Amino acid sequence: RRGEMAKLTQLINNEVFRAYATYTTIVLLKMMLMSLITAYFRITRKAFMNPEDTDAYGKGETAKKYLRTDPDVERARRSHLNDLENIVPFVGIGLLYALSNPELSMALLHFRIFTGSRILHTFAYLIPLPQPGRGLSWAVGYAVTFSMAYNVLKTVWL
Amino acid sequence: RRGEMAKLTQLINNEVFRAYATYTTIVLLKMMLMSLITAYFRITRKAFMNPEDTDAYGKGETAKKYLRTDPDVERARRSHLNDLENIVPFVGIGLLYALSNPELSMALLHFRIFTGSRILHTFAYLIPLPQPGRGLSWAVGYAVTFSMAYNVLKTVWL
Amino acid sequence: RRGEMAKLTQLINNEVFRAYATYTTIVLLKMMLMSLITAYFRITRKAFMNPEDTDAYGKGETAKKYLRTDPDVERARRSHLNDLENIVPFVGIGLLYALSNPELSMALLHFRIFTGSRILHTFAYLIPLPQPGRGLSWAVGYAVTFSMAYNVLKTVWL
Repeated sequence: RRGEMAKLTQLINNEVFRAYATYTTIVLLKMMLMSLITAYFRITRKAFMNPEDTDAYGKGETAKKYLRTDPDVERARRSHLNDLENIVPFVGIGLLYALSNPELSMALLHFRIFTGSRILHTFAYLIPLPQPGRGLSWAVGYAVTFSMAYNVLKTVWL
Repeated sequence: RRGEMAKLTQLINNEVFRAYATYTTIVLLKMMLMSLITAYFRITRKAFMNPEDTDAYGKGETAKKYLRTDPDVERARRSHLNDLENIVPFVGIGLLYALSNPELSMALLHFRIFTGSRILHTFAYLIPLPQPGRGLSWAVGYAVTFSMAYNVLKTVWL
Repeated sequence: RRGEMAKLTQLINNEVFRAYATYTTIVLLKMMLMSLITAYFRITRKAFMNPEDTDAYGKGETAKKYLRTDPDVERARRSHLNDLENIVPFVGIGLLYALSNPELSMALLHFRIFTGSRILHTFAYLIPLPQPGRGLSWAVGYAVTFSMAYNVLKTVWL
């Protein structure tokens, strides 16, 4: 069994795969942060979705008024959903790209630009920055994922 | 080619990876179950989003009144979205963690607590349990994913 | 290091894994396409969620009227969310299935039917086709993922 485990370790010792592991972990942690930001806005703005969440604020009509939407909460939720829509393809296609034996420098370029674009996108969404700030940060990450997909299909089929 | 295939099988024969495969499959099946629960509430509560979905209930004004939101349907949908937000990081970070050569007992501890916390979360959301029941079950799964992320980054960088 | 890299390449050279890489990339690109379709409907229907997105259409009250929901935009968004809910389990369970050493012909059958069902689902949602067109295309992809999950658990536990 030790022999097999050593084989697994080879994957995590590969430099491209280590870069993939690092940046995937970072963008997934960034996405998880959106849950805390939404919770922060829900609590400070007192804007909840579930009746049982308002019990701490009193019973009956007193608490009922906190069952409402709030622009900051909704903005954080949209940013979170946009993360899901874009980080899921990065994680899936990025894994295949990392296994397709790319140059380390090219792989790092893809992973770093994507990670940077998603961090910028979150700031652009939450501050919010005037457009096309958010649009451009989104498009850069989208183009990076598309480029990795192209490389995967090229490696698999040529 | 048989030689290569045997190599692939080594991954699925590794005990940590088998544990990852088992619990990832379980939590993803649990997440898929949310689609059926939402569909169940849509049909029993007669609450639909798409005009073409109400055709079975008659034409025109008769059917139009079923294009509405229902608290049980919305609750199931929120539970489903919360699964997506939390299970996606588990699947991605958990794969990297499984490949980072952790102790089998530690890996099982992480995977089992996460899986238990998500099952509890679904019950807490759908029944619903009074808070902080749902909040705590969510936080436990969140902390487990964070702990795996910490272990991945430590393995990659130290 | 070249030796390790060669080992990684073995994964992408495995025929089942290449099939997984191909169809996963295709369905993830299809999912990414939903962002462009939603953006297309937002711009042509002039229906936005964020105040900063309407600045191109003038200031103040003129722009404010474009902060609204539109049936076509909402339909594209629901189709996108349905992709997330179904393609995430496919990518995760499909990876484990590809590593569980299935027959190539069976693996291709699973991957191709799933990919076809999701493409049909998108057309059924956006046109829209009368029910049960969308429901059936959804159910086929769901059943394929369930079948792969069954095979993963069988391989891991028997």
